[in-house]
Amino acid sequence: MERQKRFFLEERDIPRKWYNIMADMKTKPMPILHPETKQPLKAEDLYPIFSEEASRQELNTTDAWIDIPDEVREQYKIYRSTPLVRAYELEKALDTPAHIYFKNESVSPVGSHKLNSALAQAYYCKKEGLTNITTETGAGQWGTALSYASKVFGLELAVYMVKVSYEQKPYRRSLMQTWGAQVIASPSMSTRAGRKILTEQPTYQGSLGTAISEAIELARTVPGCKYTLGSVMNHVTLHQTVIGLEAEKQMEMAGEYPDVVIGCFGGGSNFGGISFPFMRHTILDGKKTRFVAAEPASCPKLTRGVFQYDFGDEAGYTPLLPMFTLGHNFAPAHIHAGGLRYHGAGTIVSQLMKDGYMEAVDINQLDSFKAGVLFAQKEGIVPAPESSHAIAAAINEALKAKEEGTPKTILFCLSGHGLIDMTAYDRYLSGDLQNYQLPDEEIKKNIDCLEKLI
Amino acid sequence: MERQKRFFLEERDIPRKWYNIMADMKTKPMPILHPETKQPLKAEDLYPIFSEEASRQELNTTDAWIDIPDEVREQYKIYRSTPLVRAYELEKALDTPAHIYFKNESVSPVGSHKLNSALAQAYYCKKEGLTNITTETGAGQWGTALSYASKVFGLELAVYMVKVSYEQKPYRRSLMQTWGAQVIASPSMSTRAGRKILTEQPTYQGSLGTAISEAIELARTVPGCKYTLGSVMNHVTLHQTVIGLEAEKQMEMAGEYPDVVIGCFGGGSNFGGISFPFMRHTILDGKKTRFVAAEPASCPKLTRGVFQYDFGDEAGYTPLLPMFTLGHNFAPAHIHAGGLRYHGAGTIVSQLMKDGYMEAVDINQLDSFKAGVLFAQKEGIVPAPESSHAIAAAINEALKAKEEGTPKTILFCLSGHGLIDMTAYDRYLSGDLQNYQLPDEEIKKNIDCLEKLI
Repeated sequence: MERQKRFFLEERDIPRKWYNIMADMKTKPMPILHPETKQPLKAEDLYPIFSEEASRQELNTTDAWIDIPDEVREQYKIYRSTPLVRAYELEKALDTPAHIYFKNESVSPVGSHKLNSALAQAYYCKKEGLTNITTETGAGQWGTALSYASKVFGLELAVYMVKVSYEQKPYRRSLMQTWGAQVIASPSMSTRAGRKILTEQPTYQGSLGTAISEAIELARTVPGCKYTLGSVMNHVTLHQTVIGLEAEKQMEMAGEYPDVVIGCFGGGSNFGGISFPFMRHTILDGKKTRFVAAEPASCPKLTRGVFQYDFGDEAGYTPLLPMFTLGHNFAPAHIHAGGLRYHGAGTIVSQLMKDGYMEAVDINQLDSFKAGVLFAQKEGIVPAPESSHAIAAAINEALKAKEEGTPKTILFCLSGHGLIDMTAYDRYLSGDLQNYQLPDEEIKKNIDCLEKLI
Repeated sequence: MERQKRFFLEERDIPRKWYNIMADMKTKPMPILHPETKQPLKAEDLYPIFSEEASRQELNTTDAWIDIPDEVREQYKIYRSTPLVRAYELEKALDTPAHIYFKNESVSPVGSHKLNSALAQAYYCKKEGLTNITTETGAGQWGTALSYASKVFGLELAVYMVKVSYEQKPYRRSLMQTWGAQVIASPSMSTRAGRKILTEQPTYQGSLGTAISEAIELARTVPGCKYTLGSVMNHVTLHQTVIGLEAEKQMEMAGEYPDVVIGCFGGGSNFGGISFPFMRHTILDGKKTRFVAAEPASCPKLTRGVFQYDFGDEAGYTPLLPMFTLGHNFAPAHIHAGGLRYHGAGTIVSQLMKDGYMEAVDINQLDSFKAGVLFAQKEGIVPAPESSHAIAAAINEALKAKEEGTPKTILFCLSGHGLIDMTAYDRYLSGDLQNYQLPDEEIKKNIDCLEKLI
């Protein structure tokens, strides 16, 4: 019997529904609060910012399964199912008894999992009669995905791109422009939020928080324009569950069930996307599976943050979210995994973390690149710096299995490829990259500011 | 019945043999000649340059099917089968009755079809006890592929990269280095051939011909080192037939057979790879299929060159090849489709062209990018500038079908993605790119030099 490396689903077996874990959670996430009234938010409160359908999904704690619109599913067929891959060569290099699988979301035409939600959000905006949308992007993955999705559904798009990424990743900008998007470096002079920060700190390199503030301000002030977000929010994670739902069927094809599921962690949508369909069986059937979020040591909201109500953005435009956070004023170091430079975790993931359904590890920058290069040389795919955090965590699990001499089935999500991040690899290979130490005082300072919020 | 967008083969159906069209050709290609004796080459004559197995394959005109080594096929599983895709959205945009399919080789981890031959060549070199290999690369696609293949089989690699690509495509260089290769801009001072050209033309931007001369010189002078080539040669095209062999089975799954098969054309291996398995049925069963090579208007060896014996490289180190050529001194314009900037066509393709089995069209630079952007916006994938030539030709065929009001099934090879060529898209989108006029006298001058060769 020939060993099989990659597992695909038939097109007809691409999921027709996303999985909404909130319906199954024993303890629901605490409510999102209106920033002024401090009352639990209703879907209508979100309508000025998000599409109405996304707003309803955001607060839906009752329906476990949400239909994927046919128009979105038709577009999924461009790249889905994505392959589930057995990393035989990596296993061999680590000399581990563990079986390592990864779900390869890098095969999407935009290079990452972000397209799963971009297509859904753009579709809802179009269906609801909008002409323009706006967003922010950190590493550029989300902006790239939304650029293509906007083109598909005929929407104009303005992307606020974190300045440090704008400069480090010119190819990302070109990609978005090839798909017809307008790209603006953030902080910019085009919004009140951007001008304020630029005035106070002219050399500020930007952050996801600032870019979000700018995009939301644009959506609020331009008629026919709404905002979309690439992570953190419940509806985004909902759309990403297509990853785990496929992986579940594919692991079955491989004849295995994961002992540990790993995702890199920025705001939580990629992690939730791969994890929640498996966690469903932990919640409902008591399956013993570990779920591990791999976050950067320089932005450790899960491992060193606090569970508190906080804003999703720097300027305080968003509702108050119950989350593990480093404080919305936290300015993360300029690591190359730009997509993980966010101060908080989504509300669902935060509640699951609090309730002990998952755990978190922190990975420093050099270890993430070391893992990324090994993976590239063994499995062929150059991973995105974000994804390398998941790879590093998977390698640690595999080495532990070797130490303990016990077999273990590891599944991680390869959220994207790094072909447009080669500058980062260049710097790593030439010894020009470093780890960032994050003193406790720095964390405490930003967290202490939160007390007065609620 | 739900329409199907992508077709995959089961892993066990990945081909186990390559197809050698020479065995079936009614008129065999004219012999390759030793440059000094002008006598037909024997495999042994090639041993100093190529691996022995590649040398034997190069001259094998009798075996129609050549085994794919298990070790190579195991590596193919990282990305093969590549999807055959029905371009529904492109069809809709063109409002054509034609069915357009493309074979998506861009999903290989190196981003192009080149890995199909790189793995084979590296494997043979390793098996024959070599420690080092060398090569040239134009667009960077071949060098990237060989870098990964060398790492897989444990060989040291030195890549001579055409200088204009080295400068335009820093990410390509980083990619090769991530997989452990040494990358040298050509012309370089490290070889006699390079020094000669640099002395005569210090600002020369390089060409595939020059880079080949440098790599061959290195292989000849360093013990334990041999040369590998990414196109033109018969054995390279042989390895690429895995593309067409898969496509044949996949078209069957789609319930169609192509009326026209299209490939972009540099040296001919990508074109031959997609075409030959289908051409087999034209030769053996009289199937009526058109085969169209899409070459750049600025390097038109098939549409404006002559059929003559010529060298494969600028310095005249290679054997004499019977080919359609613009003369080995021809210096093509610096178009962004660097992989198509080569003066000649492989000997098999040249003979097939002479015998009327195939045809050629020339595509100018602006039309290729216009086609590439349309394809990106409709099918999601940003194509390599080389591949955009095939897309432009396919679009022309689809528009002809619309004009004539007749259905037609078109198959083209998407040889690679353009994610690492975004500089080129940037220039196109900002109106900074141009077409190149190629005067007849320029062509005549270089062709006239050929007469004294034989």
